[in-house]
Amino acid sequence: MNISKRGQKIQPSPIRKLKPYADRAQEQGIHVYFLNIGQPDIPTPQPVLEAFRDYDEKVLSYGPAQGFLELREAIADYFNFYNIPLNSENVIITIGGSEAIHFSFSVVADPGQEIIIPEPFYTNYNGYAAFADVKISPLTLSVEDGFRLPSREEIEKRITPKTRAILICSPNNPTGTVYSEKELERVVSLVKKHDLFLIGDEVYKEFVYDGERHKSILEYEEVKDRVIVVDSISKRFSCCGARIGAVITRNDELYQSILKFAQARLCPPSVEQKAALAAYRMGKGYFNEVREEYQKRRDILYEGLKDIPGIVIRKPQGAFYIIVRLPIKDNEHFVLWMLTDFHLNKETVMVSPAKGFYSSPGKGKDEVRIAYVLKEEDLRRAIEVFKEGLKKYLSLF
Amino acid sequence: MNISKRGQKIQPSPIRKLKPYADRAQEQGIHVYFLNIGQPDIPTPQPVLEAFRDYDEKVLSYGPAQGFLELREAIADYFNFYNIPLNSENVIITIGGSEAIHFSFSVVADPGQEIIIPEPFYTNYNGYAAFADVKISPLTLSVEDGFRLPSREEIEKRITPKTRAILICSPNNPTGTVYSEKELERVVSLVKKHDLFLIGDEVYKEFVYDGERHKSILEYEEVKDRVIVVDSISKRFSCCGARIGAVITRNDELYQSILKFAQARLCPPSVEQKAALAAYRMGKGYFNEVREEYQKRRDILYEGLKDIPGIVIRKPQGAFYIIVRLPIKDNEHFVLWMLTDFHLNKETVMVSPAKGFYSSPGKGKDEVRIAYVLKEEDLRRAIEVFKEGLKKYLSLF
Repeated sequence: MNISKRGQKIQPSPIRKLKPYADRAQEQGIHVYFLNIGQPDIPTPQPVLEAFRDYDEKVLSYGPAQGFLELREAIADYFNFYNIPLNSENVIITIGGSEAIHFSFSVVADPGQEIIIPEPFYTNYNGYAAFADVKISPLTLSVEDGFRLPSREEIEKRITPKTRAILICSPNNPTGTVYSEKELERVVSLVKKHDLFLIGDEVYKEFVYDGERHKSILEYEEVKDRVIVVDSISKRFSCCGARIGAVITRNDELYQSILKFAQARLCPPSVEQKAALAAYRMGKGYFNEVREEYQKRRDILYEGLKDIPGIVIRKPQGAFYIIVRLPIKDNEHFVLWMLTDFHLNKETVMVSPAKGFYSSPGKGKDEVRIAYVLKEEDLRRAIEVFKEGLKKYLSLF
Repeated sequence: MNISKRGQKIQPSPIRKLKPYADRAQEQGIHVYFLNIGQPDIPTPQPVLEAFRDYDEKVLSYGPAQGFLELREAIADYFNFYNIPLNSENVIITIGGSEAIHFSFSVVADPGQEIIIPEPFYTNYNGYAAFADVKISPLTLSVEDGFRLPSREEIEKRITPKTRAILICSPNNPTGTVYSEKELERVVSLVKKHDLFLIGDEVYKEFVYDGERHKSILEYEEVKDRVIVVDSISKRFSCCGARIGAVITRNDELYQSILKFAQARLCPPSVEQKAALAAYRMGKGYFNEVREEYQKRRDILYEGLKDIPGIVIRKPQGAFYIIVRLPIKDNEHFVLWMLTDFHLNKETVMVSPAKGFYSSPGKGKDEVRIAYVLKEEDLRRAIEVFKEGLKKYLSLF
């Protein structure tokens, strides 16, 4: 009576497993600045909260497996605004971006097959790869060149007969890198050449700074049939706990197959879909303010960290994360020490060991991911505390 | 560029695929009595709806992967009331009972391995089996003996070296059968003997009639470590659209492994968990009224159908479904005909072809599942219309 191999193989979330140490620090009266997870402090927009208050059905019943038509239309409209031709029949509402990832992996690959993903990557890809029994083939990027994609030849080396898809996350979690058109074109031409699917995780679409715009892989006509986009309202509208995402494809065969996976779990939560609809109905103006706020935070963080002796840091272009290399040997030891052995006037900082974002063994042990999810005042103070902590840590180890 | 084998293999929901025909009937001004799906018309309790209205957090943020502690405690308390010793550390909140099924399948079996399930069975097991690439080994039951479990020897014949678990759904969807202690003991002793897991889908726990009580597989101490229970608030509190369920196990290794699957999808919806908590806080009195209502409906349905010439029908003991054999050859043809070619004063009835609840080819083609999810007046009228429709159908085919 052993649990399944996949049940043994799946890794605990490297972000969540350190949480108990933070809890303990808090119990001891220490204020912890959480820069470790992508939980923004931006208030959830009023129309979303009002949608919960206004819910007035008598029976909280099942909805359609693909999600409510109105919400699918609103999402198609959202993309249409960016000149991406989509309609409601290209959209399936999912239970968070998480489920969109799970559906995408399962529909392109069978057990034992491979999906190429540039690393460091969003750690939950690992969870779904284990769940779906699919192998992630990592394409290792490096902090020195700002986690840009390598040459066409380097990418091509990762392609094997088992490869089924390439996944590109841009703006990137955990690196903050936004891929250029040139980088995207490289991948687009490779999926065409090798007859692969292309999965785009674009949940941070609105979070691109310095006046740049996000280029979606949905904009490449020549791979229209190969593209699956993972989307979510979690960060876009500061609604992480709503668990509403979407999977988008213009390949009808893919759509119908994903719909069957969706039917197995009946439907996404009904009330939360109404809340999501209220979010989309706010219009595009909402994002400008949020984007400005995050750009400011990014600048504060970058300026605050860049002069740390021995740091390797490149300015990220999007999302709300940065990965930096520090003059440390074991990031988990450092992150734990900050929680268990250090405080500055009863304050400390939690960041994420970047090790968990790499699947290649030994990679990323001297890197940490920092999420700029706190408001200016808190972020400034957190940087101060972080630098003091690091200084003391380096004097000891 | 082909979609995955599992993406091709997964069947469309046999219940949902006929929905467009019902839509068309409605568009033509025909009133359709939906006895095909388990969507009760019982109003969602006020405290649940109020929980949505009262939601007052500023940021709709991620919750814990295993669900909010308060809700896990409330569920443990609910089982404690039935003298089942559980605590919050045995409960993981899931996104509907659906996710609890998915987690259970994935944690006990690897691709290619088998789970024995008595058939006819809840059709979404098929979906998750395909999704998790696990094989369902059906143990065929029959309407003549009220879908009771067969002898120990008959069950044992299904066990192979690839078998990892037996799944028992009681009260049963789609048959309405509630297994006796003797039947459960048979299965309990077999999982012990053959070192298997035992999955119990007990989401209809409260729906047992005639003063009988539901026996949970959690009550069998000798298989404490082997048991996983799938639970859900959907039917219990008429909250199908909330998507809140739970997976329950007292095997810590299983728990930890399921928790890792849960971490990959971050968390269940936050607001809906608060609504679920409000539901559990109503206390046990709530169920008595609901149970009485369903028992009345069951009696109306049973009495209304039992004299149909050629019907094979046994009185179900629980849940809110019945499977009957009719003197027809092709249930899908019959169900479609009722939607497309028949109406009685602009009214018709939709039931489910039972074929979709069997995985053995050719089984159940002359059976239909009827869900008694409508209030007395509607149910009585639906039975009348159904009988007229069947009479006319039999005169034609």
